[in-house]
Amino acid sequence: MATSPWRELLQQAMQSHKHLKHSTHLQLATVRPDGRPANRTLIFRGFVEGSDKLQFTTDSRTHKICYHFTNSWEQFRIHGTLDLIGHADYESARKSLREKAWFDSSPRARAAFAAPHPGHPKGSEPSEGNLQVDPNQGPLDTFCVLTLDPEEIDYYHAKDAVRILFKSSTTEIGHKVWSQQELNP
Amino acid sequence: MATSPWRELLQQAMQSHKHLKHSTHLQLATVRPDGRPANRTLIFRGFVEGSDKLQFTTDSRTHKICYHFTNSWEQFRIHGTLDLIGHADYESARKSLREKAWFDSSPRARAAFAAPHPGHPKGSEPSEGNLQVDPNQGPLDTFCVLTLDPEEIDYYHAKDAVRILFKSSTTEIGHKVWSQQELNP
Repeated sequence: MATSPWRELLQQAMQSHKHLKHSTHLQLATVRPDGRPANRTLIFRGFVEGSDKLQFTTDSRTHKICYHFTNSWEQFRIHGTLDLIGHADYESARKSLREKAWFDSSPRARAAFAAPHPGHPKGSEPSEGNLQVDPNQGPLDTFCVLTLDPEEIDYYHAKDAVRILFKSSTTEIGHKVWSQQELNP
Repeated sequence: MATSPWRELLQQAMQSHKHLKHSTHLQLATVRPDGRPANRTLIFRGFVEGSDKLQFTTDSRTHKICYHFTNSWEQFRIHGTLDLIGHADYESARKSLREKAWFDSSPRARAAFAAPHPGHPKGSEPSEGNLQVDPNQGPLDTFCVLTLDPEEIDYYHAKDAVRILFKSSTTEIGHKVWSQQELNP
């Protein structure tokens, strides 16, 4: 697969900020069912193998139904379509993507999916005691993988005052192609 | 005016990150007229005097109509109502807030409001040559002040696993009061 033109820019930026603790943190903006916006911080888990899709993990109990997405991380604003892979997803490739992401997580990260319901009043549920997840146990039901398929990337380099808009379109034979245009910053 | 309970937490967090270049940068998520979310980075310009409103400046040419807002900065997610103060705003207090914000801006920041239309294709407009704004000139028409009146603050301290939800309500005599509740992180 040919590398998308924006991907190299993103990877370079991440590489040069690697020494910063929060370089993989980004903000995901979505629209809630009631029409109000929501924003939360996620950790970028890399690209889905063989694709341009960005991968995240999330707890199904904190997830809202999302339609589109914009991400403002450093100077990249990424618009695209979100796809949520949960425990009731039996399609083989999606199922194994979710299992791989689970076993790639640390024991501490896995334990969070057995914790009391996020956002509920503290102490409103019976305590489960020490939260331990058997290292051989597969993904808990609350564990989800979220992927983002980018459609548009608004790249802005503040220092050089350069702004480039990358847009994807689909050819007649179904290939995704990227065009780019320089904009006023 | 009594200090709102979340404001001290925010100010402490900003104080302890003062040495970081981007400590005043935050992400503003809004919903566009077509229902898609938008996210952009803004610089926090402090509180509007005598109020809990957060203040920003923005170019009217980049601004989208906004209804509500969520901000994810460090561990603070702030929901509230946005108010845009533009050049056609003649109400005295709003007019002087905008003028004060303009003269508080650096010459370089002011010049940006005379630059070619942000987001238009580069070179699509006749160049204005060297962008200089007369230091005595008042706000350009493109200059706007944006304020956010917080209604809900979702505070999360990752290290201590503490999450507190602050909610405002209005009393019978029109006073804004804050309540708070500890949530599961």
